[in-house]
Formats: sequence, C-alpha cells, structure tokens
Amino acid sequence: MAAAYAPVDGAKLSSILAGLPDLRARLGGKPAEWRVREVGDGNLNLVFIVEGPAGGLVVKQALPYVRLVGESWPLPLARSWFEYNALVEEGRYAPRLTPQVFHFDREQAMIVMEYLSPHIIMRKGLVRGIEYPRFAADIAEFLAATLFHTSVLAGTAAEHKRRLELFARNIELCRITEDLVFTDPYREAPLNRWTSPQLDADKRAFETDAPLKAAAQARKYQFLTDAQALIHGDLHTGSIMLTTADTRVIDPEFAFVGPIGFDVGAVIGNLLLAYFAQEGHEAALHARDPYRAWILDQVVEVWAGFHDRFLALWRQAKGGEAFVAGLFISPQDEAALDAERRRFLRSLFEDALAFGGLKMIRRILGLAHVEDLESIADPERRAICERKALSLARTLVVEGAKFAGVSDVIEAARAVARG
Amino acid sequence: MAAAYAPVDGAKLSSILAGLPDLRARLGGKPAEWRVREVGDGNLNLVFIVEGPAGGLVVKQALPYVRLVGESWPLPLARSWFEYNALVEEGRYAPRLTPQVFHFDREQAMIVMEYLSPHIIMRKGLVRGIEYPRFAADIAEFLAATLFHTSVLAGTAAEHKRRLELFARNIELCRITEDLVFTDPYREAPLNRWTSPQLDADKRAFETDAPLKAAAQARKYQFLTDAQALIHGDLHTGSIMLTTADTRVIDPEFAFVGPIGFDVGAVIGNLLLAYFAQEGHEAALHARDPYRAWILDQVVEVWAGFHDRFLALWRQAKGGEAFVAGLFISPQDEAALDAERRRFLRSLFEDALAFGGLKMIRRILGLAHVEDLESIADPERRAICERKALSLARTLVVEGAKFAGVSDVIEAARAVARG
Repeated sequence: MAAAYAPVDGAKLSSILAGLPDLRARLGGKPAEWRVREVGDGNLNLVFIVEGPAGGLVVKQALPYVRLVGESWPLPLARSWFEYNALVEEGRYAPRLTPQVFHFDREQAMIVMEYLSPHIIMRKGLVRGIEYPRFAADIAEFLAATLFHTSVLAGTAAEHKRRLELFARNIELCRITEDLVFTDPYREAPLNRWTSPQLDADKRAFETDAPLKAAAQARKYQFLTDAQALIHGDLHTGSIMLTTADTRVIDPEFAFVGPIGFDVGAVIGNLLLAYFAQEGHEAALHARDPYRAWILDQVVEVWAGFHDRFLALWRQAKGGEAFVAGLFISPQDEAALDAERRRFLRSLFEDALAFGGLKMIRRILGLAHVEDLESIADPERRAICERKALSLARTLVVEGAKFAGVSDVIEAARAVARG
Repeated sequence: MAAAYAPVDGAKLSSILAGLPDLRARLGGKPAEWRVREVGDGNLNLVFIVEGPAGGLVVKQALPYVRLVGESWPLPLARSWFEYNALVEEGRYAPRLTPQVFHFDREQAMIVMEYLSPHIIMRKGLVRGIEYPRFAADIAEFLAATLFHTSVLAGTAAEHKRRLELFARNIELCRITEDLVFTDPYREAPLNRWTSPQLDADKRAFETDAPLKAAAQARKYQFLTDAQALIHGDLHTGSIMLTTADTRVIDPEFAFVGPIGFDVGAVIGNLLLAYFAQEGHEAALHARDPYRAWILDQVVEVWAGFHDRFLALWRQAKGGEAFVAGLFISPQDEAALDAERRRFLRSLFEDALAFGGLKMIRRILGLAHVEDLESIADPERRAICERKALSLARTLVVEGAKFAGVSDVIEAARAVARG
C-alpha cells in the first residue's frame, strides 16, 4: 500500500479499491463490473465516482498543483491530510451533515467517502431556482456545532492547542485565501479577472478605495491571528451538496483554526451573491421575485439559527476552558455572563458581514468566480448584477457596525437590488 | 551526551561543563577551580552560577515538578525547549536586552547562558527604591521589537504558523497562567492565599463580582485565542535583571503565540504593584514620594515608548503579511492605514490595562505573590497597600475603555493611593 504517490486513473483506482476488503464489499461484485467516472469540476483535485452492484463511493485525490491554473502553481498533497482530519472532526460534531469517510491513504493523498446521491452542489440549485426547505436549519446547525465544539468555549486548552498545532501546517491552502480573498482584488494582480469593460471603472475604484482596503487588511490580520475554532475555511455554496431532504458540507481542505465569522460569512456572502444573480437568470422581470425572497429568508434563518444554536450550546456547556462554568453561580453572575455572550455574538455578526462581503468581492474582481454570475451569458446583464453585489459587499465590509441585526442587512440588499 | 535526564548538583554540573570545550574555555582554569552555587529563588527550576578564573556562566535546569509546590505538581521538562526557542527568537530582535545563550541540552532540559553581573532582579530594586534610568526605554524597545517582529505585521504567514505550531505544544505552562491568573483568584481554590483576615472580605467580594469575573474570563478567552505574536508570557519585574546601565529580560519559559497586550500589561501591572507597595516600605509617611513618582513615570514611559516604537516599526515595515505595504500608496491610503494602526494600538492599550489589572489581582489573591508586597512584614500595613492595588486593578479590568490615555491611568493610581 505504501506505493509512491501517483495520480490515479479509473483502472488504477479499481485495483486499489479491490485490495481493500471493506470498500470492495461496499461496491459489491467484481472490479470489472465497477463503473468509474472522473467528475472533478473543482479547482484543485481529482474526484471519482465509483459504482458497483452493491453501492457507490467517492474518491477524492489531491493533485500536486492547482487544477484551475495548471502545473505552474504547485500545491502540496498534504492538504488531503488536513481535509481528512477536518472531515473527521466535523463528523464528530455534525455527523448528519458531513459525508462519511471510509478510508484515507495519506501517501496517495486520497480520501474515500460516501457517494452522495441524488445530491447536487447547492450553487447549481441556486442558479436553477430550487428551494431547499432543510438548508437553513441544517447549515445553521453545522456552523454552530462544528464551530462551538472546536472552540475553547466547549473544550480544553490542550485540545485547542493540539488542533492549532496540527492545522498550523496547512500553510499553502491558507495562503490562497490570504492572497485571493484579502489582497489581490484590491490591486493589479495577473490572475484577477472581471466582466470587462463593463466593470473596469469599478475595479479601479476598488483599487483606490482607502477605507475598504484598510478594512480588508484588518480582516486579513484577523484571519491570520484570531484562532477561535476549527473552521471549514471555504464554506461557500459550492461546498454544500444537498437535496430537499438532506444537506452535507464537503471539501474542508482549507480548514484551520481561525475566526468563526469566516465560515458564517462565507455562507451569507454566497447567498447574497446568488440573490443578486437572480436578475440575470429570470426569464422576465420579477419572474424570480419569490425565489429572491426565499434566498433572503435563508440569510435571516442561517444567521438566526446559528446565533440561537451557538448561544444554546454555550449556555449548556460545562467543560469550556474559557468562561469556566463554576465561576458563574448567582443570578448576577449569569446576567453578566449572558451580556458577555451577547457581546461575543454581536462581534461574530460583524465579523460574518465583513468576511461575507470580502468573499463576495473576490468572486467578482478576483481569480475564482462563481457559476451564479458566470452563467449569465450577457455581460451587460451580468455586470448589472455584479455591480449591485459589489455595492452591498463594500457596505458590509466597511460599515458592518451600522447594521443592528440581520433584517437590516436584508433591507440593505433589497434597497441595492432596487437600484 | 545523551544521558537520561537527572537533576544536577554542583559536581555533576562541573563534569558536564568540563566536557564542552567552548564552555570550559569561557570558565577557564580547571574544573576543580570552578565555584558552583545554586541560586534558584524562582518557582520552577534549578539555577546555578558557575564561576571560573576566566568568567562566569548561568545554568538553568528544569525540574520535573513545580518547585514552589513540590513533586505533587508535575511539570514537563519540555518547557526548557520552549524557553530556549523563545530566547533565541527574542535575541534575534532584541539582542542587547536578552541574555546570550551558549548551549542547550534538550535531554537534560538545561540552558547555559550569560552570567549577568552585577545585575539584580528588578523587583528587588523596586523594593529597595532604586531608580533605573535605562529601564523604561529598554523595556519599551524589548516589547516593541520582540512583539512587532514576531507578528504578521512584520513577517509572513508561513513564519507565523511555524511559530504557532512550535509553541502550541507549550500546553502545561500556559495552563498555569490560564488557571492562576484568570480563574483561581475569583473562586475558592486550595492554593489561593491572601493577607488574612484583613482581606477576607475583599477576597469574598471578588468571588461574587459578576462584571469582574465576566471580564476576567473574556480576557482568558483572548489569552487562549488571540495569536498575535510570540509573547514572553511572564514579563513581570522578576523576569527583568538590570543595573542602572543595562537591562535584560530573562525566563521566557511561558512563551507562546498570544496577545501582545499580555506582555505589555505584565510590565505595567507589576510597576503599579510596586507603586502601591511603597507605602509599606517607606520609613516615614511620604518618604518615598519621589520614588513613587519615578515608578509612575516609568508606567507612562513604558507605554509611550512601546507605542511610538511599535508604530514606527509598523510604518517602516515592508514584508508584513497583513496590511500589505504595496496596497497603500496614495495619501488617502496612508491616512486610512494610519487610522487602522491607531485603532490597533488603542485596542492594545485596553488589552494591556486589563491584563495588567488581572496580573495585579492574582498576585494578591492567588497562589504566587510578589516580594514588593510580601516583604511588608506588618499585615495591617500590607493589607492597606494590597486593597488599593486591588481597587485600581479592578478598574483597569472592567473599565479600561474609560481611560483616554496612560496619563489617566496615572491619575487614577494617584487618586486610589490618596485613599
């Protein structure tokens, strides 16, 4: 099994799986009967679906470079190790909401996991206008459970420091975020792209927007130093696979111990991108108004659900290293502690808005774009959507403090959408 | 050399040093001529001064338990590894202000370093009423240089993460701070002690002080998660050795990547303890007024010196991962960035006050006390000093936001001292 790393093809993969009795049994039949398809449409990895008479598997293998860019941008295979560890830890706290992991081969940088079917990537569902009744509650639960339980509000300092130590080595994937989210959209960087020439002036305006740049870099500082919890690190709607009955979060290869608001903001920011993209997808003006409203409802429900669940977990917690439960006994103690919890969650709210805004901006002015907007064929129409998204995003980054609550954010989104 | 760990005595130590040509040469003569004294008056370690015809050395060897408490409280020898690494890193950025390291033996948990003579522990100088004209500028430089250069304002994310990874293993020493500074003084803990019965009511009041406990635990959360820079972690006046002409910071075994304000606050808090202790040391009322004024001047100068030097280093920095220099070009950019820098330093100021206040409290109500106060033989007199120190400390922890600047802190200290 300790063969040197090599990217697999279908035949090679079948022979590997055939040598692993548990996986062979899951697939059933003989290797010759297995159907292997490479389906990776992501930016970084090979992804195979393997189906046999008894069932299916997904195999994700890291490539030693950024698939989106090519071999000129090398990327360590070890990211697979961090993804595996993050999947295991997320699975501990949100088992219903993560793919089950069946096997990990560190040498081959390969994770074998549950085949989610008939799930689709949520972003594709948002483009098609599909409503997912379980989505908001499930993602709120995923966020609250994984982020609370991997923080020192729930666990010991020793557990926290072991996580810090392990994921501190995930340097290169974090570097992608540091550069592509926080820095490159605000300068001339060779890999930036945007809807041109429609947004040329907007791009230039962002490059000279002093308060925005200072705020973006303050958030980069926070991303680099605020070691609150094991975060997914890339929790956009392309990292969510779902049906109307089931929700799963995949692809935590960017995981590290970072700011809680980064994950929460990723979900909110990507929902808002989907919201502004609807104008480019509707067959006639206002045709998608109900779907627009549904998306904004999800923003409210994700934040409110996360807020309430996180607060509830905190109130029940007994073993957290910070805010030691035994110190707070009297009604006055409990009131002071609860005031501190509310201050903490208010701070997370502003973090989430700012990180969400930054992630919106980078998807319009930076390297990696999103299908919500890219699938709008007419550049004029796309640019109108994108300009609105940029406008709200900038407000979220620079003026987050002015939003009393999530319903104000929705109001602001509606106002920007009206033009 | 890879003998199993064993605490050394004088003879054993001489034979070890005799086997190391560089150290043997530093001492000169023959081992039989060397004078070895165990001088450890600290809480955790063996410390030897070895003097030969050509010069002296200090040898610090970790013990596998807390010396202050005994073998019932085990403590890993590995802390010596963290101390060594911190000394090396501090020496890189503040070489004039740290002891030179000559040798490290990981197996024996032993650091051989420069013998500082005629330096004394600053705390003893403060008890005696000695003014150190270089102290404030030197410590301000130590703080600014070590804390700035080990942050992502100066270095890359990769460097930062390597430091995080290494020092994340310093779990047990950090745990001492987490418990003894942030938690135990606010509850009944078996090792707490205080001037009793004089402060019994004060101790009980702190145990039921809801806003103070919530603030203390919020700072514990920050201590556990705010990975700003490689901090010394125990920078009280007992970790400073000096003469009127030279200043050195020793004993960074509590080092880890934590909040900058913790080190700055440690210095300020311990100066304020010394300030309130003067009332217990003066031969006649007001006899030490000039020295009191000198101490308060040091508080101002340490903060102002740190502030100005940190800001200057930041303004000159070219390679920081956060606040990327190339993004800020126009006068508007520079103004926005400078506003961010001032916001950052204001936040550090409040951090320093709160951490300083917590460190004052723990020295009066917790396990480990300080000679400034312990050397006041009369418990009535000591309790008067301690009660005043507790009063200011509480304000620093709970109401730091109300201090516009360090001179307001000095005003508050004077007001409390007047009673």
